[in-house]
Amino acid sequence: MKLEPADLQKRAARIRLLLMDCDGVLTDGRVWLMNDGDEHKAFNVHDGQGIALLHRAGLKTGLISGRSSSAIERRGHELQIDYVRQSVSEKLKTFDEVLSDAGVSTSECAYVGDDLADISIMRRVGLAIAVANAVDETRNAAHYITSLDSGKGAVREVCELILKAQGRWDELIRKYLE
Amino acid sequence: MKLEPADLQKRAARIRLLLMDCDGVLTDGRVWLMNDGDEHKAFNVHDGQGIALLHRAGLKTGLISGRSSSAIERRGHELQIDYVRQSVSEKLKTFDEVLSDAGVSTSECAYVGDDLADISIMRRVGLAIAVANAVDETRNAAHYITSLDSGKGAVREVCELILKAQGRWDELIRKYLE
Amino acid sequence: MKLEPADLQKRAARIRLLLMDCDGVLTDGRVWLMNDGDEHKAFNVHDGQGIALLHRAGLKTGLISGRSSSAIERRGHELQIDYVRQSVSEKLKTFDEVLSDAGVSTSECAYVGDDLADISIMRRVGLAIAVANAVDETRNAAHYITSLDSGKGAVREVCELILKAQGRWDELIRKYLE
Amino acid sequence: MKLEPADLQKRAARIRLLLMDCDGVLTDGRVWLMNDGDEHKAFNVHDGQGIALLHRAGLKTGLISGRSSSAIERRGHELQIDYVRQSVSEKLKTFDEVLSDAGVSTSECAYVGDDLADISIMRRVGLAIAVANAVDETRNAAHYITSLDSGKGAVREVCELILKAQGRWDELIRKYLE
Repeated sequence: MKLEPADLQKRAARIRLLLMDCDGVLTDGRVWLMNDGDEHKAFNVHDGQGIALLHRAGLKTGLISGRSSSAIERRGHELQIDYVRQSVSEKLKTFDEVLSDAGVSTSECAYVGDDLADISIMRRVGLAIAVANAVDETRNAAHYITSLDSGKGAVREVCELILKAQGRWDELIRKYLE
Repeated sequence: MKLEPADLQKRAARIRLLLMDCDGVLTDGRVWLMNDGDEHKAFNVHDGQGIALLHRAGLKTGLISGRSSSAIERRGHELQIDYVRQSVSEKLKTFDEVLSDAGVSTSECAYVGDDLADISIMRRVGLAIAVANAVDETRNAAHYITSLDSGKGAVREVCELILKAQGRWDELIRKYLE
Repeated sequence: MKLEPADLQKRAARIRLLLMDCDGVLTDGRVWLMNDGDEHKAFNVHDGQGIALLHRAGLKTGLISGRSSSAIERRGHELQIDYVRQSVSEKLKTFDEVLSDAGVSTSECAYVGDDLADISIMRRVGLAIAVANAVDETRNAAHYITSLDSGKGAVREVCELILKAQGRWDELIRKYLE
Repeated sequence: MKLEPADLQKRAARIRLLLMDCDGVLTDGRVWLMNDGDEHKAFNVHDGQGIALLHRAGLKTGLISGRSSSAIERRGHELQIDYVRQSVSEKLKTFDEVLSDAGVSTSECAYVGDDLADISIMRRVGLAIAVANAVDETRNAAHYITSLDSGKGAVREVCELILKAQGRWDELIRKYLE
């Protein structure tokens, strides 16, 4: 289902909301289990900077995770992610709620996934993205597969793709180049 | 001892119980030692999803570990693994007990290992698997060597291999593709 | 903007102060978020040894980080880094303050970065370095791109580059070779 | 200084004591700094198994580390390493003390290092080994460079090299192959 570049650009240009799975998308898929019942995850600073640029361009973002941890909560808060939904068993139901709350249509939504549970949302959004290290079925369901692995900048790559398609990238980074 | 594809499929089709070593199989083999005597490990979410699919197909699973930590306990509990045996010095004895309790014959059991201590069980089971980064002797004792390293989806690969050989995979993931 | 070897050597020979971003430069860019609001990072021992050699040669060093954590504080203290500035929102302002305090001109300063926020400083210093895994814009702004990734010895590579250009390397390591 | 295979075998056959640096040899060189002043490290289980086999063959082992942490203490204790020396500033002095205590000559000692501070010992021992990811000077000082990186089984590779050269390997692993 990979797209011609022109079609990819057209889809990316419409996006107003970027939704993401957390484990295996904003992390490399590893969880460290703690004694106290909590769990640790490792997040990538380049991804964080990409999300900050999306926000500056006026786009909204959200995390939909089947797992739950204080690490997701904190990362969502730190990056000012608009929607952080944890312990989600039915991703499609949460997806509908978030879209409704954000006032965004499916074609205005992008989603980044890595595993089977992400496919149902990916089949509905305007721009479905799989990270390079996603499982086969998820890769097959994607309009675009990142060149970077999750936890190594895959989400940063997605943010750039969207902002460039929207003609916002050069303006957003201008202040950094001075 | 690597098998012809047809023989591999036949062996995998019979499996009712998947047993695994923990360190170096469900993790990349690294342990973080803590002040309090406990230790941390990093588990992969794709592996976890694979084990959940095995359970949904009615197969049983078990962990046999020479080490002991709250991380193994928690991961076993979280994934609803049927048998979690830690601090095991004689893996073969524990192996016999688990098979007896599960009412499963050796030919109905698969085992995934990475080091010398896993070979004795691997020589007895119907399907012996080594992770890609196993030591040489363990690789030589395997019917199948995963293409993925441990902690990067090796166990997920095993779960798919078994469920596909049993003709269950397409049915199990159908709901994700809708 | 990559330089001819001779120009690179000339620029490196003048350096008296090495400034660095922290996340993605002294680490591989990953942060582990903790329950208590703090965060963990993983530092590389080879980098640490390189910085110790710089100090022994009489050069000064500094960290300028947009984030804040006890890990940065401790690493800075342990390595006796001269300037540790955390929670920096305007890197250029902090850069000016540090240079003024150190009594060093921009041409006597080297800076190692990995992301957009590092470019403004990189455009001002005598020797601008990007780590191998820096984002494209930062790589483009560099006089030199390390061959090693951050967290895997990129900073050690920079320390050696500078000390060799200054003709100090052989003398500094002589005692180790005896 | 890399050796002909025959000379390497001859040197390895004489070894009675294996000494190692810790960070960057038994770990991948990364340290996680904690709030309480302690630090975490990640050890590899294959390395641990290799050291256990050395001990079973009657060889002695030791760690000489410039850093200090409870993680080294615990790993040393867990693996029953004979000599654990932390916060060592002059490695050569500690080296002499350990050899004297162990009643072992320099030609009966092997040492595994990764950085400059290891070279002085490497120049004195019968078998000097650098891990694959050691710095250049340390690699140049080695009789043998491992094919595996540190933290990924480099020490296991060393243990096998020594035990095979001594004709002990097959006997030691026989029980695992039954």
